[in-house]
Amino acid sequence: MPVTVSLASRSYDIAVGSGNLNNAGSLLASFKPVSRAVILTDVNVQSFGYAQSVAAAIADAGIDASILSVPAGEQSKSIETADTLWQTLLEDGTDRKAVLVTVGGGVIGDLGGFVAATYARGIRFFQVPTTLLAQVDSSVGGKVGIDLPNAKNMVGAFHQPLGVLIDTETLQTLSNEQYLCGLGEAVKYGESLDAGLFEYLEENSGKINRRDNEVLQKIVSECCRIKAQIVSEDEYETTGRRILLNYGHTFAHSFETMSGFTLLHGLAVASGAMCAAQLAVKLGLIDDALRQRFEQLHKSLHLPAEIPVNINADEAVALMQHDKKTEFGELNFVLPTGLGQCKTVKCTPQTVRDSVWG
Amino acid sequence: MPVTVSLASRSYDIAVGSGNLNNAGSLLASFKPVSRAVILTDVNVQSFGYAQSVAAAIADAGIDASILSVPAGEQSKSIETADTLWQTLLEDGTDRKAVLVTVGGGVIGDLGGFVAATYARGIRFFQVPTTLLAQVDSSVGGKVGIDLPNAKNMVGAFHQPLGVLIDTETLQTLSNEQYLCGLGEAVKYGESLDAGLFEYLEENSGKINRRDNEVLQKIVSECCRIKAQIVSEDEYETTGRRILLNYGHTFAHSFETMSGFTLLHGLAVASGAMCAAQLAVKLGLIDDALRQRFEQLHKSLHLPAEIPVNINADEAVALMQHDKKTEFGELNFVLPTGLGQCKTVKCTPQTVRDSVWG
Repeated sequence: MPVTVSLASRSYDIAVGSGNLNNAGSLLASFKPVSRAVILTDVNVQSFGYAQSVAAAIADAGIDASILSVPAGEQSKSIETADTLWQTLLEDGTDRKAVLVTVGGGVIGDLGGFVAATYARGIRFFQVPTTLLAQVDSSVGGKVGIDLPNAKNMVGAFHQPLGVLIDTETLQTLSNEQYLCGLGEAVKYGESLDAGLFEYLEENSGKINRRDNEVLQKIVSECCRIKAQIVSEDEYETTGRRILLNYGHTFAHSFETMSGFTLLHGLAVASGAMCAAQLAVKLGLIDDALRQRFEQLHKSLHLPAEIPVNINADEAVALMQHDKKTEFGELNFVLPTGLGQCKTVKCTPQTVRDSVWG
Repeated sequence: MPVTVSLASRSYDIAVGSGNLNNAGSLLASFKPVSRAVILTDVNVQSFGYAQSVAAAIADAGIDASILSVPAGEQSKSIETADTLWQTLLEDGTDRKAVLVTVGGGVIGDLGGFVAATYARGIRFFQVPTTLLAQVDSSVGGKVGIDLPNAKNMVGAFHQPLGVLIDTETLQTLSNEQYLCGLGEAVKYGESLDAGLFEYLEENSGKINRRDNEVLQKIVSECCRIKAQIVSEDEYETTGRRILLNYGHTFAHSFETMSGFTLLHGLAVASGAMCAAQLAVKLGLIDDALRQRFEQLHKSLHLPAEIPVNINADEAVALMQHDKKTEFGELNFVLPTGLGQCKTVKCTPQTVRDSVWG
């Protein structure tokens, strides 16, 4: 059963399965007319053959398919790479009935989605996320974008995909670090939004660490269901619902920036979640026992469980003030109020500084 | 009475008047919360004091206002300028409750609208068009974008403004060439969409050439009304209605590209309209008497009235195949079928070549 993202203008499905990359052809063919498919991937993902499998399935469905590949890593989420892709699409005669298919992790989905959102004022795109991070989070919900040198995702758009195709078998080829990144986001959903998921993660930590495919399908489906529900309620992040997906993220973004984007997003989120939990304890929103339970799950899954102390706390707090969610100079945090529950809390920079690093 | 653009998600007004730039403050204040206003203009427009008047009116309404200025001309509709603006907004701490106010011609509206559409995944913007071209066309309807080196408007978005404020007094400071540019688009509306407007233009050509303010208010209002109606019916150019605004444009875009963007848009449109009329005669859609009537109005208003013959026709036709409206390799033209009437016609490149330059 696919998970459905229901929007005001239209709905789309997230198909979660195992070994289902060759469904890409029939899925794409259902969105006719499609003049051609341009598959965007990175050299790393390409080495596992995923983009080629998707291209072959699309070609089998009678749609012309070509592959564009960019270097792996956050540095491809740049204006320069977007510029190169725009010009390549133009040179290849890509028209408005073409579909851009992103096969890869969050960088490929965000970059490809942004290029699709802006090329010829917007062409359609289809997401095939191959990392756990992209499967549980970034491929769902239509947030696309690129980075400025000092600010992640600062240039972007809301551009919903035609659909999302998830094959959990691709998770077997992830590096340990990439896998942990996705777990960081999955744990975020449990801690801040869904007690049932949190408990499932606690109960299955051994199988998770062994990348058990059945457990992964369950986790990915649950995360997509939680995210789809919130996105359906707040497509453009205007009602205050969608911001609840950002538990740990205000901290995480500053840690990522300070590392020059060498710290991976999901790991930064795991650290950020612990910072947010600590802030919540200090503000009296949760008791320390719950924070310790979060910490324990992080440890069981080999995720960062500590507040980063070897950083410049003043710089971290200053960077948070550049976050997109800042309004009128105040800092907005999503903080836990219980297991699987959270709310937004406005804080002064000083309170954050003192509560987390004081 | 303002003209209203009615969209599925919301509506906005186009306020047409004379000497009404200082209404910008109260208009903007009605869209609270507004954290600050960033006014984008060009050095040329700034020399007439329009951006300063708008800034003063906004500051008087209690909203912090600052001015950003870019070089005048099409070359500012570039990735490089957009990049500079994104980074400047970030450095200035611009948040999601800020409004970008564009004061200038089509370049400023398109560039500013694109930067607003993409900064922090989209902030609001407000249009204050000061050229006739921008007042009758580009400021209305939400099409924003920048150019690629070989293709105008190839990177962009649909991003509707909060509202549009038009002061026809600003038309008195336009160069003759800029003024003619706007007339080119106004004539387009008459020829292809509104017989009443065409007749009004015929009857008032003397006053138009003297820039009579009352006649200009009437023309600008009528053009906005025609465009608002079509945009309301087809916001995202998906139903085939909106493409009817592009009479003369497929030709025009290729002429502009061939000139290295030194040929001004409205003049290119006037030439393109005559090419489209000629193609329509050859295809039997109109008789030559109507084409001659179009030609006569162009001459009365000092607009290009001839088909450009000192160009490489093969190159022009080849460039048309790169146009955004191309689908499955066929060329789409909006051709007149009578006075104030038009329809889309698919044509092979060879037919265009032979009918217009044969």
